This record gives sequence, C-alpha cells and structure tokens, in this order.
Amino acid sequence: MRALRVGDGTTSLVEIAEPEPAGEALVRVRLSGICNTDLELARGYAGFRGTIGHEFVGVVEEPGGGPIARGRRVVGEINAGCGTCPRCAAGDPRHCPTRTVLGIVGRDGAHAELLRLPARNLIEVPDGVRDEHAVFVEPLAAALGVLERCPVERGERVAIIGDGKLGLLCAMALAPLGPLLVGKHPEKLARARGVEGALVESARGRGRVFDVVIEASGHASGFALALDLLRPQGRLVLKSTFHGATPIDAARIVVEEITVVGSRCGRFAPALDALAAGTLDPSGLVSEVLPLSRAEEAMQRAAAPGVLKVLLAP
Amino acid sequence: MRALRVGDGTTSLVEIAEPEPAGEALVRVRLSGICNTDLELARGYAGFRGTIGHEFVGVVEEPGGGPIARGRRVVGEINAGCGTCPRCAAGDPRHCPTRTVLGIVGRDGAHAELLRLPARNLIEVPDGVRDEHAVFVEPLAAALGVLERCPVERGERVAIIGDGKLGLLCAMALAPLGPLLVGKHPEKLARARGVEGALVESARGRGRVFDVVIEASGHASGFALALDLLRPQGRLVLKSTFHGATPIDAARIVVEEITVVGSRCGRFAPALDALAAGTLDPSGLVSEVLPLSRAEEAMQRAAAPGVLKVLLAP
Repeated sequence: MRALRVGDGTTSLVEIAEPEPAGEALVRVRLSGICNTDLELARGYAGFRGTIGHEFVGVVEEPGGGPIARGRRVVGEINAGCGTCPRCAAGDPRHCPTRTVLGIVGRDGAHAELLRLPARNLIEVPDGVRDEHAVFVEPLAAALGVLERCPVERGERVAIIGDGKLGLLCAMALAPLGPLLVGKHPEKLARARGVEGALVESARGRGRVFDVVIEASGHASGFALALDLLRPQGRLVLKSTFHGATPIDAARIVVEEITVVGSRCGRFAPALDALAAGTLDPSGLVSEVLPLSRAEEAMQRAAAPGVLKVLLAP
Repeated sequence: MRALRVGDGTTSLVEIAEPEPAGEALVRVRLSGICNTDLELARGYAGFRGTIGHEFVGVVEEPGGGPIARGRRVVGEINAGCGTCPRCAAGDPRHCPTRTVLGIVGRDGAHAELLRLPARNLIEVPDGVRDEHAVFVEPLAAALGVLERCPVERGERVAIIGDGKLGLLCAMALAPLGPLLVGKHPEKLARARGVEGALVESARGRGRVFDVVIEASGHASGFALALDLLRPQGRLVLKSTFHGATPIDAARIVVEEITVVGSRCGRFAPALDALAAGTLDPSGLVSEVLPLSRAEEAMQRAAAPGVLKVLLAP
C-alpha cells in the first residue's frame, strides 16, 4: 500500500507492506487531515520515523476483537496506552508513559491506505456525520479539551491568539463563550463565523482585561502577547506545541501570578456529538482535498501561507 | 538619615532627608532583611532607583491616621494600592495596576532608618514574637502564599527545588505536607529541619512521581528539573522571580499537560500567626546581623556562596 513516511530529513510517499492486525483493528482510511504537527515531524521534530498522520476517518477492515463491525465508519483516539499502568488503569491512556501515538510516537499513522489501532480506540461515526466533518474529530476534540483543562465561567472574557487552523478550531469550539480571536490576517479572522476578530495591535489596545487567553499561534510572540492581554491572576492556556526552547518572560508569570495550563488532546465523544448535532461545522476550514498519490505536494501546500486544512483521500 | 540606595549601577549607603509622612505612617526600622530581589535591583533589574529593602520589623513613629499607636512594633504589607481601582476595591492591592511596592516599585524601602507606608499596610507584631522572627514575615508570607495559589491535598507528593533562602522558607512553610527539598548543597539541605533533602541527581532518579513541584531556585535549570520530576498533569509553582527571558521547553508543558502557577506575595496574617504560635522558626536561616552602617558590605556578603539571610540593624 502507499504511505507518506518521514525520516532522515525526507518526506516521501512510498509503497510498503500492508500492516498485520497483530491483535489490533485495521482501518481503511477514507480521509486524513494534515496537521501542523505533521509538518513539524517532517522537519525532524521528536525524531519520529514512519508514516505520519493522526487525523482520519475510515472504515473498519478488521475489527480486532472490538465491537465495531467490518465496514462501519470510525474515527480513532490517537493515544494507545499499555493498558496496565496506573494512568491506563485510571482510564487515561493519553498520559501512559509508554504510550504510542498514531503517526507521532512509535506507531505508523493515517496518511496511508490502511492503519492499525487497538480496537478500544475506535469510535463509530453516526450516519449523519459526513467524512469531511468526521476527519476533524481529533483536532476539534483537542480544541474542546481546553475546557477540560481550564473551565471557563460564563461572563469571563476569553481571547484566542492565532488565526491558523488551531486558533480557528478553538474559536469554533469556544464560540458560545463569546471569545475574541486575535490574529494577523483579516481574511483568516473572517473565517471564524460568529466570533469577533481583532488584529494584534487592536487587541493589545484593549488592555489587560482578559480572564483567559488561549495561545494557538505556536510562536513565542504569541506567548508574549498573551501576557499583555491577561489580567493579573488570569489563565493562559498553551495549546500549540512549541518547537524547541521558547524564551519566556517567566518573571511576569510570577509577578502577575498567572496560571499557565498546558492542553494537548481532548476526548473524542463530545466532539463527535457536536458534529452529529450540527452545532459545529468545520468544513469552512478545508482549503483543498488531494488524492494520497499527491501527498508530497499536499504537504507543501499545507505549509503555504494562507492555506488552512489540506485533506488527503487515498 | 542613612539609606541604602541603588541607581545608575551603583549601590551606596547615603545620607538623605527623613521622609515626610504626607498622610502615611512613618516606621523606625529595627531590623531589615536582604532578599535576592535586593541583589537583582542592585544589578539594575526593573530599573528601580531609590532605597531598597522590603523585609522589615520596626516601631511606629507616626501613626499616619491608622489605629496602631506610636511606639508599637509593626511589620508591613509591601504593596500599596491606589485604593480605588477594581482590584483594590476587591481587597487585593497586590495586583493594583498602579501600585507602588516598598523598595521595589516607585517607593523607598526598608534598608534605612525610617520608612513610609500607608497606615492600612501596617500589622502589629504580638509581644511574644522577637524582632529576628518578625523580620521574616514578608518572605514567610510569600512561602505560605504557595498554598493560596496552588492548594495541595493531603497525600499528594510535593518537591521544592532550590536550597537557598526561598527554598528553605518554602520547605519550612510546607513541612506539614512532607515535601522533598532538592538542592545542590548538602549543608544547606540540612538546614531544613524535619524536611527530607535530596541532591539533584538523586531526586531525578525517583522519576516523574511528584504531583506538585515548587521552583525556588531562580534558574532555568530548576525549571527543567521541575518538568523531570512532575507527573503528567502535575502542577509547577513558579516562586522565583526569574531575570530576563528564560528558555523554557514549552512543548513539554503542552504534551504533559502541566499547569504552571505563578506565585508572588502571600498574606501577612497567617505568617505572623505561625510565628506567634511557634510553629515556624526561621532564625536558623540567619547568617549574619550587620549594622546599617555596613550595608554595602552586607550586600556583598548576602551574594556570597553559602550565605543565607543577612539582616541589617539601623
């Protein structure tokens, strides 16, 4: 089968053997989404070698001992825990110290014709949810996960920094809280329908009035801007995976008594529920859908300025 | 009167006019303590120019309209708010945006014969509390303030990084929680009576098992060590005021979903209560008591390796 693989500084679509189930489920991929993490992995981040891709919707090819029948559509939680450590026993494989992560850590990913995951990671997609929506379950779950890690009370003022894919998804997920989306590109800010947008300098002009700021730009400048927007004792949610050491004015965290909350993955079920109910519609974030045969080109497209989500169809 | 002043890169004991009350209280200083912040201010941190010093015990010289009579011993909250902004109205002048701070921001400090503070900032010292204990109220309040910002449940594992003054005070304040104090100096670790000490490599060898880590070393390496000790979703309390931009592996905060909690000042009353009750005894942290006339030498002593708290007596 074809798979988009990274390693040794190259990113190539290659022909490899189909995976063996080996006690797990096999899923035939219908759509996969290119995430900024994929671009980072291609640049050598975290030293991953293998097939990248962790956002997908597919069809069960081998149930792997699980309850979802062959032919059913599924999405899949990307963290595969050992199943026996205290974190796994507590129902949280996302923090299992020996976990593998689909297309990120020790496990081949979704930019391929077939992928393998433990059957317990799969979640069936309701018939009413289209593939183009279901492929967003993982990043939407991550956006909704902000509220798991940092509950926000009604009436609190929320800002989101970054008008890329991640920031727009956070804006969509948190729209009921009336957030301000802060970015550098008017045309991207306009994509967040129903959410107020502001350019960076305009946001700074509002002063330190926000109770919660979500950093979704992935740049050190976004971290600094967040500190300029937060009230004393405010909460800063770090959503982007920064690459390398980030210079941070830690003294301000102390003096202003800020709380910085790291947030990575969220739970899939609430995201799938929101898509099924139609309360979230991420299709406006899709820039292009390319066949897997053009995956290398798709990676370049995804890295181009102004491009949001690029999907691959095997 | 004599006062230890910084500015233009120099630190000098100089003769200046006694302060006018100008509606505030005047306090004749009996003892003041040299804090690492004083050393930073002397190096030009935050651009402060004036008399440094914010840890003190003294005697009321002019009550300034307050209820504490002339001649009574007092300590004083160091943040002086505007009294009218929303933070002040909510009883929290510590975060008033236009506050002055004794010997730190826009207000002359305590390494002098007399100091001035709003009468409402003064707290009377019970007769049973000696000057050598009362002078520790401000840093002890800051240490106890960790629990205001980051409540710890019984049974949670706590580590404190840094065996300097701040780390030792935190160890003393949090001793009932059974913390592990981590440092580089066996002789300093031994000063934290009743608290287990460990050298850095030994602590790292215990693995990522701590629920809460308090960074009190002020070094970027302490931040990195904290991330090595914390369990996933653990809490990291930043207590030290880092100087300048600190390179931080922010990706780990996101991936491990760490919460970083900035903590600066605490409330004075609980610290004074603990000293009055005899449950805290910081006198073991005093390295030397020098007369104010030797303040310049005292600053050098306070910066020397192995020296803990240096006190000044006008």
